[in-house]
Amino acid sequence: MNTYDVVIIGGNPAGGTAAGAAKKLNKGKSVLVIRKEPDALVPCGIPYTFGTLDSVEEDIKPIAPAKKAGIEFLIDEVTAVDTEAKKITLQKSEEIGYEKLIFATGSEPIVPPIPGHDLDGVVTIRKDLAYIKSIHEPLMTARKVVIVGAGFIGVEMSDELAKAGVNVTLVEAMDTLLPLAFDADIIAPAQELLKSHGVAVKTNEMVDFIQGENGKVSAVKLKSGELIEADKVILAIGYRPNTLLAKEAGLEIGRFGGIMTDEYMRTSAANVFAVGDCAKHRDFFTHKPSRLMLASTAAAEARIAGMNLFSLKVMRQTKGSIAIFSTSLGKISLGAAGLTEKAADQEGFKIIVGISAGMDHHPGKLPGTSEQYVKLIFAQPSGLLIGAQIQGGPSTGEMINILGLAIQKSMTASELAVFQYGTQPMLTAGPGVYPIVVAAMDALAKMDT
Amino acid sequence: MNTYDVVIIGGNPAGGTAAGAAKKLNKGKSVLVIRKEPDALVPCGIPYTFGTLDSVEEDIKPIAPAKKAGIEFLIDEVTAVDTEAKKITLQKSEEIGYEKLIFATGSEPIVPPIPGHDLDGVVTIRKDLAYIKSIHEPLMTARKVVIVGAGFIGVEMSDELAKAGVNVTLVEAMDTLLPLAFDADIIAPAQELLKSHGVAVKTNEMVDFIQGENGKVSAVKLKSGELIEADKVILAIGYRPNTLLAKEAGLEIGRFGGIMTDEYMRTSAANVFAVGDCAKHRDFFTHKPSRLMLASTAAAEARIAGMNLFSLKVMRQTKGSIAIFSTSLGKISLGAAGLTEKAADQEGFKIIVGISAGMDHHPGKLPGTSEQYVKLIFAQPSGLLIGAQIQGGPSTGEMINILGLAIQKSMTASELAVFQYGTQPMLTAGPGVYPIVVAAMDALAKMDT
Repeated sequence: MNTYDVVIIGGNPAGGTAAGAAKKLNKGKSVLVIRKEPDALVPCGIPYTFGTLDSVEEDIKPIAPAKKAGIEFLIDEVTAVDTEAKKITLQKSEEIGYEKLIFATGSEPIVPPIPGHDLDGVVTIRKDLAYIKSIHEPLMTARKVVIVGAGFIGVEMSDELAKAGVNVTLVEAMDTLLPLAFDADIIAPAQELLKSHGVAVKTNEMVDFIQGENGKVSAVKLKSGELIEADKVILAIGYRPNTLLAKEAGLEIGRFGGIMTDEYMRTSAANVFAVGDCAKHRDFFTHKPSRLMLASTAAAEARIAGMNLFSLKVMRQTKGSIAIFSTSLGKISLGAAGLTEKAADQEGFKIIVGISAGMDHHPGKLPGTSEQYVKLIFAQPSGLLIGAQIQGGPSTGEMINILGLAIQKSMTASELAVFQYGTQPMLTAGPGVYPIVVAAMDALAKMDT
Repeated sequence: MNTYDVVIIGGNPAGGTAAGAAKKLNKGKSVLVIRKEPDALVPCGIPYTFGTLDSVEEDIKPIAPAKKAGIEFLIDEVTAVDTEAKKITLQKSEEIGYEKLIFATGSEPIVPPIPGHDLDGVVTIRKDLAYIKSIHEPLMTARKVVIVGAGFIGVEMSDELAKAGVNVTLVEAMDTLLPLAFDADIIAPAQELLKSHGVAVKTNEMVDFIQGENGKVSAVKLKSGELIEADKVILAIGYRPNTLLAKEAGLEIGRFGGIMTDEYMRTSAANVFAVGDCAKHRDFFTHKPSRLMLASTAAAEARIAGMNLFSLKVMRQTKGSIAIFSTSLGKISLGAAGLTEKAADQEGFKIIVGISAGMDHHPGKLPGTSEQYVKLIFAQPSGLLIGAQIQGGPSTGEMINILGLAIQKSMTASELAVFQYGTQPMLTAGPGVYPIVVAAMDALAKMDT
């Protein structure tokens, strides 16, 4: 039996990043990644294959850097794990032994049990090259597409398909797009932009059933009674952890179905780790189980596991997962970190909100200038930053990471009001109106009464 | 005699920001800004009036928001300050009394005493609307311009004028462009880009004298012997604090000529503050006097003064000024925070450098993708981040602010290796290769030997 120092099941962001960290911080150890497909997609790039990219293939993550780093790959499927004997069974290949094993088995789209969910033409967005290739042409040439669920996948798919000329209706049960990530003030302009790109947005609407003719989708019936004609339906209401293999191996499973781990991503079985969508997460603010599934969170966990496989080399310094998101709809980009106002309120925080509204270049007459609206949410009386939202231009993706870091470092409004930053006319807002400090000062002024 | 609660001398970023902070955090106090010109330029925007913007007027900072906030303006020049009687004398208007006074008198371009510096056609970049208007047309229609000094102003002016079709030679005494901000590995591609835009770059060269004919510039003679034909010369070798008024008022002046202040920007005279380029700065890492003059640093100091005028409301939490810069040359943007490798070495730090080289979108086939090269400099054995440099796309300006914040929060390589961030295909690098963590892990791997 062939034995590796480190075996990783799954080769998407979690598995790939764990492999890289394992190899980089544990010199001389052999690292094997086992995955089902020879090529893996960049999962967050999938929506962009429907328009912005020229083909699905352009979204393939190159494997060469990992191979160059000395990571080995086996294209196969693991059928069983024996945590006592420290070996795995494979569909095609012979058994493989391991010193350390990492589950990075990811997640599967949730298919809600609504009537008609199994009709021909009803698809999900699976993180799987062959599947995405199989639905690509049919969606791009569809006459009318209904997308169910206005999370990031639903919104980005709507925008891409609409820009590519497809007639798109987006249906969301809650009252705004991206309701878990953004408050209404931030999302309103993005919702208008999406409409201007041709997407029919229907919020506060639930699907009653999907109607078919000869086994094929023909329409979507909403609970409000409206019937929307459709030849394709995309179900984008969320993902569930892929844990069948872990369960069969006897690993403990947590609430919401993720594999239980400790702070260092160690499961209930010795020498076995779990990272990413298949693992259980805890919320940074409340330490409650969290449904958060993000490639960036997965990668952060993967690094913690990979670096700490053989000894605890790198302390985990944050106490849970922070939701840090961004998305781009062309002219408008959006970012969010931590709790929304709504979520903070639901958790029982007493909050003060600071706002900044300005431009992301200075002077604002420079080409490429976008409006920039920054909202910071502070807990009272501590003054700690617990949430941030941005609506702005292309720098939004990195700016929200400043605020994600500020949350992780337990920064307060008064600290953010005097923090040092750099500014440049073409790249940022002006020095006197830098939005993070302006919003922090706005909150301070509200506290100082 | 008219008396204001707060009087600010100077209306550029330091003065304007101090006024905003004073008004916002000290409700009901009257705030007067005294400045020489009715309209003020966005100082960092000045280079962009030479091409990217359509006119100098497009770089005027709007005054309306400040007036709306209740800040008053007086266009006049202060001729004397009496810190005992708490009043100021003006050129045109009557004396004005103050409760609290802030010096924000800025800086003036340094004119080196080289022969020919006073010839017609030799200019500097003064932060002054009338002056910039007076040199704008002559520079845009010049045949050959020599720019002396490859700091940010010199580099940005070179790039703008060259793109506008002017023949430009940039002369720098040190061996690379922007030598105080960047190490050679980061600056090399930018130097090539500048050349490709048509700028003749001459490093390791000093000006011997400026040659004239009939009182007008005709050429620049370098110490190497080379004679460069020129009808205009821009001296861009730096700025010196404007402190004549402060000296006459008896305020203590520090090394490098800045007004001495404590942590809260209080000068040696009671109730008198100084902020920005006219004030003395201390370096974050060594607490030595620092020559740093940045609008962003000025604005941060201005806020500390403005919020703390009547009582110490907001603690200053960083121990000095950190250089955080960015610039954009079109396809390439550059950012730097803290110490360069060279500066760290000169100060006696033992360092470990971590590198990441990748793309700023994922997959890299997405439109608008730029190469992204991130270099982190850590002190040993503490592992503390003391410097960062980025070469990348338009997100560089905010990404360097993440690293500036990490320096301020005393973060280590192992902490940065597991920090949580958000990623998005159009806005950032991929989750598995997010450059800050990749560079931090690279440094960790080098430490772990």
